[in-house]
Amino acid sequence: MEPIKWNGKTLAVLDQLQLPETIEWVECSTVEEVAEAIEKMKVRGAPAIGATAAFGIAIGAREGANLDKKEFFPYMDAVCDRLAKTRPTAVNLFWAISRMRELIKHNSDLDVKQLAELITREAQTIAQEDVEMNKTMGQYGLRFIPDGARILTHCNTGALATAGYGTALGVIRAAHEANKNISVYADETRPYLQGARLTAFELQQDRIPVTVITDSMAGYLMRQGQVDLVIVGADRITANGDTANKIGTYSLAVLAKHHGIPFYVAAPTSTLDFSLETGDQIEIEQRSPEEVSIIGGKRMVPEGVPALHPAFDVTPHKLITAIITEKGVVESPDRDRMAVLNRKG
Amino acid sequence: MEPIKWNGKTLAVLDQLQLPETIEWVECSTVEEVAEAIEKMKVRGAPAIGATAAFGIAIGAREGANLDKKEFFPYMDAVCDRLAKTRPTAVNLFWAISRMRELIKHNSDLDVKQLAELITREAQTIAQEDVEMNKTMGQYGLRFIPDGARILTHCNTGALATAGYGTALGVIRAAHEANKNISVYADETRPYLQGARLTAFELQQDRIPVTVITDSMAGYLMRQGQVDLVIVGADRITANGDTANKIGTYSLAVLAKHHGIPFYVAAPTSTLDFSLETGDQIEIEQRSPEEVSIIGGKRMVPEGVPALHPAFDVTPHKLITAIITEKGVVESPDRDRMAVLNRKG
Repeated sequence: MEPIKWNGKTLAVLDQLQLPETIEWVECSTVEEVAEAIEKMKVRGAPAIGATAAFGIAIGAREGANLDKKEFFPYMDAVCDRLAKTRPTAVNLFWAISRMRELIKHNSDLDVKQLAELITREAQTIAQEDVEMNKTMGQYGLRFIPDGARILTHCNTGALATAGYGTALGVIRAAHEANKNISVYADETRPYLQGARLTAFELQQDRIPVTVITDSMAGYLMRQGQVDLVIVGADRITANGDTANKIGTYSLAVLAKHHGIPFYVAAPTSTLDFSLETGDQIEIEQRSPEEVSIIGGKRMVPEGVPALHPAFDVTPHKLITAIITEKGVVESPDRDRMAVLNRKG
Repeated sequence: MEPIKWNGKTLAVLDQLQLPETIEWVECSTVEEVAEAIEKMKVRGAPAIGATAAFGIAIGAREGANLDKKEFFPYMDAVCDRLAKTRPTAVNLFWAISRMRELIKHNSDLDVKQLAELITREAQTIAQEDVEMNKTMGQYGLRFIPDGARILTHCNTGALATAGYGTALGVIRAAHEANKNISVYADETRPYLQGARLTAFELQQDRIPVTVITDSMAGYLMRQGQVDLVIVGADRITANGDTANKIGTYSLAVLAKHHGIPFYVAAPTSTLDFSLETGDQIEIEQRSPEEVSIIGGKRMVPEGVPALHPAFDVTPHKLITAIITEKGVVESPDRDRMAVLNRKG
C-alpha cells in the first residue's frame, strides 16, 4: 500500500478522503493539482506530504524545462513557494522543499533539462529513503514493544502517511513481523477519522489485530489496564523534544502519564525542527469548522453554532518516554539529549 | 424544550436520534414502545430515562386497569421488569421503577382503576420534581461559576436529558440567567454526538454562547488556559462519590486534574446508589459496535474490523472537586462526606 505513485511524468495520489469505501487515484499533472491534493488532505501524514511536495517540485521542473535558464530559477522558487503554503504544521513539507532548493542551488551550472531530471530523481530518492528510514525506525522501536503488547495509537502513521511502511505504524509492523503477538487499539481520530478509516484498513490488510475506539475511550481502557503502551507519529519536533502531532495526541500523553503507561513518538529526523526551541513556537494549523460540524456529508452541529478545528496539538517532552528516529532513540528527551540527533550525519 | 410529553393516555417522545435536523415526536401507547424508545436512545439522559420509565409504568397500569386485582399485581411486576431491562447503567431508571413498585405495594388496598390513576399521577410528580430539583441544583451550583467562566461540558445534560432545565446544563443555565457572562465548550461526545447535536442545539436556543469541539480537543484547550471549569452530569454515583457518566468523562477528569482545573458533577440524588461501595461495582453498558463504526448512515470503519462501545466510564471520587445535588453540595466527595446526602430526607 502506498499513498502516491510516480509514473514518470505525473503523480497519482490515492484519495484518502474516500477510503476505505472507495479506492480512487487522482492524477496530478500540474503543481497546482499537487498543492490542492495536499491542502484538501487527499494525501496527508507528515512524511507523505514531504514526498508529495518533492514530486510536485519535479512536476514543476518538467513544466519549466523549456524555459530559459534565467527564467527557470525564479519559476522554481515560485513552485516551491506555492507548495510551502499548503499546510503549516508538518515540518517534513518544508524539509523536502528546502532539500530541493539546495539541490537546485548547488547544481545551477547544469542546463535546465538536466536539472529537471536531477530534481525528478531527487524526489524518487526522498520517497525511497523515507521507506528505508521507516524500516530502520521499526527495528529501533522493537525493544520497546513487549511480547503480547496491547498498543494504542492515534491517527494514521502507516504506509498511507509516509512513502511506505509507516512511522509509529512501522514500529507496530516490525513488532508484528517479529512475531510479538501484538494487538492494536486504533483511536478513530476525529474529525478526519484517519484511525477508523486508514489505520484500521491498513492493519486489517496486514492481518494485525486491530480494534477501533472513539478518542474518548482511551482513558477508560487505560484505567482498565488494557493498554501497555502508546505510540504515535509526529508532524514537527522541536529542539527540546516537544512534539506537534494530530489533535488528541496531547490528551493521550497526559492520560498515559496518569496511568504510568509509556508514551512513544516515532518519526524520521526530517520531522525535527531545531530552529524552534520549544513547542510553544510551533504554528498550529486551524482548519475549517465544517470538517468538525459535518460528518460523511451530514451536518451534526446545528447551523450557526461555531466549532473549533485545531488540526494539531503539542505534547511537551516531559510526557514522552522516548522518541524513535532512523538515527537512533532518544529516551526521556530534552534539549541536551535531542542534540545528539542534530550532530549525527 | 422537553424530551417527553404526557398527554393523558400516551407518551410522546422527542426522537433525539434525529436532532437537530429533524424534530419528530414518537407516540408511545404501549409499555413495549416506551421500552424501545429508551433502548434505542430516542430518549436518553439518566433523569429523562427515569421519568420516561415512570410514564411507561403508567401506560402499563392503564392497560392493566381492566384486569382482576389478583392479576394486576403480577402484571405490573412484569411491566416494571421489562422497563428495568432497557439500560443497565443509569440508576435513575431503577430508582423510578422502585418508587413505583413501592407506591403500588403501599396502596394495594385501592381498586385497580384507582391504582392506575395514582400511578399516572406519580409519574407526573416524578417529572415535575425533576425539573424543580434541577432548578435547585442550578442555584447550589452558582457559587462554583466565576463571572466570565469558560465552561467545558460533555454529552447532553440539559432539558433533553431530564424532565426539563437540566443537571450540569441546569447549572450553566442558572449561571447564564444570573448574568455571569459565561461561555460553553461542548464536547461533541462520540459516538452519539449528544454534545454536537443536543447541547449545542439547546444552548443555541437559549442564546448561551457555545462552541463545539471534538472530544480530543479538550486537553489542547486546557493547556492553552481556555477552560476555567468542567461540569458534567452523572448516570450513577456510588457511596464513595465515584461517578459513572458518558464515556469520555473520565478522560476529562484526568485532564482537568493535570491542569488544576475544577471538575464538577451535577446530578439529582435519584442518581445516588448507596448500595454500591465504589464505582468498580457499576455495570458498564456495552452497546453495539455499529454505533461507533457507522456515522450518519455511513460506514467509517472497514467491514470486519471490530470496534468497542462502552457507553459509560467511571470517574473516581478523588478527581471530583464537588458533587452538586438538589439536597446540597458535597465538596471533595468521599464515603464520609457523601453519607450526609443519604441521611437527608
